[in-house]
Amino acid sequence: MSQIFIGIDLGGTNVKIGCFDSQINLIGKTAVTTDADMGPEVVLDKIAQTIKQLLTKADLSLSDVTAAGMGCPGPARYREGILERPTNLPKFRNVPIRQMLTDRLGKPVVFENDANVAAWGEHAVGAGKNADDMVFFTLGTGIGGAIINQGKLLQGCGDNANELGHIIIYPDGRLCNCGQKGCVEAYASATWTAKRAQQAIEAGVASTLKDVLDQNEEITCKDVYEHLESGDKLAKKITDETAKALALVCVNMLHTTEPKRIVFAGGMIAAGDILLDRIKYYFDELIWNIKKETVEICFATLGEDAGIIGAAALAKNEYEK
Amino acid sequence: MSQIFIGIDLGGTNVKIGCFDSQINLIGKTAVTTDADMGPEVVLDKIAQTIKQLLTKADLSLSDVTAAGMGCPGPARYREGILERPTNLPKFRNVPIRQMLTDRLGKPVVFENDANVAAWGEHAVGAGKNADDMVFFTLGTGIGGAIINQGKLLQGCGDNANELGHIIIYPDGRLCNCGQKGCVEAYASATWTAKRAQQAIEAGVASTLKDVLDQNEEITCKDVYEHLESGDKLAKKITDETAKALALVCVNMLHTTEPKRIVFAGGMIAAGDILLDRIKYYFDELIWNIKKETVEICFATLGEDAGIIGAAALAKNEYEK
Repeated sequence: MSQIFIGIDLGGTNVKIGCFDSQINLIGKTAVTTDADMGPEVVLDKIAQTIKQLLTKADLSLSDVTAAGMGCPGPARYREGILERPTNLPKFRNVPIRQMLTDRLGKPVVFENDANVAAWGEHAVGAGKNADDMVFFTLGTGIGGAIINQGKLLQGCGDNANELGHIIIYPDGRLCNCGQKGCVEAYASATWTAKRAQQAIEAGVASTLKDVLDQNEEITCKDVYEHLESGDKLAKKITDETAKALALVCVNMLHTTEPKRIVFAGGMIAAGDILLDRIKYYFDELIWNIKKETVEICFATLGEDAGIIGAAALAKNEYEK
Repeated sequence: MSQIFIGIDLGGTNVKIGCFDSQINLIGKTAVTTDADMGPEVVLDKIAQTIKQLLTKADLSLSDVTAAGMGCPGPARYREGILERPTNLPKFRNVPIRQMLTDRLGKPVVFENDANVAAWGEHAVGAGKNADDMVFFTLGTGIGGAIINQGKLLQGCGDNANELGHIIIYPDGRLCNCGQKGCVEAYASATWTAKRAQQAIEAGVASTLKDVLDQNEEITCKDVYEHLESGDKLAKKITDETAKALALVCVNMLHTTEPKRIVFAGGMIAAGDILLDRIKYYFDELIWNIKKETVEICFATLGEDAGIIGAAALAKNEYEK
């Protein structure tokens, strides 16, 4: 019997599945459509079937598997293994998804939210390696977060710790989708970075991004960083605000859980050093001067496979004990 | 042999010492002058001597003691047991204080910072009882903080987690003693609540507090809350700002470590419900509306003995295992 771990990244459109050895090296991976409208029973059957096929292809079988991990966006009661009312899986309501997969595989299953899973992947084999104290942010439509403290994923009293995107950085500031004002997400997510640029142009600010808006009827975060590189002043202002907002939550997290490393992930990190250097610049400007802080700020390295890698690594961590 | 725990609260002026049974009920307590200028050897001798006298008075001896706990403000390397350069004990520089006391008592000693000790006391037998996830703030000259997560004191990668007073709530705001701008401490500590009132009066704002300033040459936080009760408009504005600042960090901590309870301690809580109700009011106003939050916000109950109670409770927790 080998020590094989399965990682599952359950999304609204696709399910990604990976098969890993005990060092979390990828043996094989695949992706299938979720077919979410067929309901949980069918979706779980399909996931179990796909896992078996993936194993067969690698000359393995379920008997080689130690455990599986599955990541999924909430809202969910992760500790109970219940997917509550995920926005991207409308037919899933209070589904005991961990037990349903356990029943189909006959193996223990770990169930965690997507940000925690990705953070754990980075911690295990990516940018967070050797950092037992780490804070993780994903910069996408919103801002997700995770905290690893003393080598463990931090959990709160319920299932709602680590909502780091909803840390208020500008009281009475921009209205966030959550109903609060001034959340870091309302400034520095990829979506809001693009929206702030678009709103400025619509309010009459001159920018080379206006042509993009006229042509495509919207501006993306990628557009903003491209125009930053070609010297547009508005793009400079908008991306500076984004970097400062991210630096502010870095300062606040340093004073809270004192991470050794802060890792940013998500689509926006494609902007590269032009973003990372600016976050570090503002961090140095904002942080106290009573002692020198040595927190490392860096970008994630696992890319799109973070979900399956993290889920497998989490399964290993839980069930190898 | 009884199970006796000793709690020590080492301050710059006085050392408080308490002797507790295994349920952390107080058996006896005393306070002696620190005599800090005599240096660490003399101070530690005096502490050990005072502990022995306290035990004798209760018909006990060192052989009844399981462990001792000591709380002290930093900077210190708590995990190593080294008091580094405490501002209130100028002759103590890189003193291996835990080992020095262990040598004198022949018993294990726990050494922790004062905010963690007080938080642990509240968690064990005070306002934080039955809350395994708790956040703690002390409102005094500055704002100290502590986090209890899943029943354990949260520690970061070094000895500088939980600097919750230096969470930035107003970027580019008031200059804090730490060199940052807009720290919650620079708005909502007892000292800064009083200073903000004083600065407003010096800038010409009308207030019944002006008479106090003219007479005493300074305003205290107690004055501000007294004048709030008698209807002064400036006192209302200042204390509202304080409550909002504290509510902001409550919101941010809820989204970070998700406590079940948030406990405020320190001199300022003497203001009573007029302060607590206002923090809760602003919390409700500031928090998101995508789900109802049920975090409990309350005041500490252990008062001035929190230091010795917490130190003894921490000793019990560490050495009863």
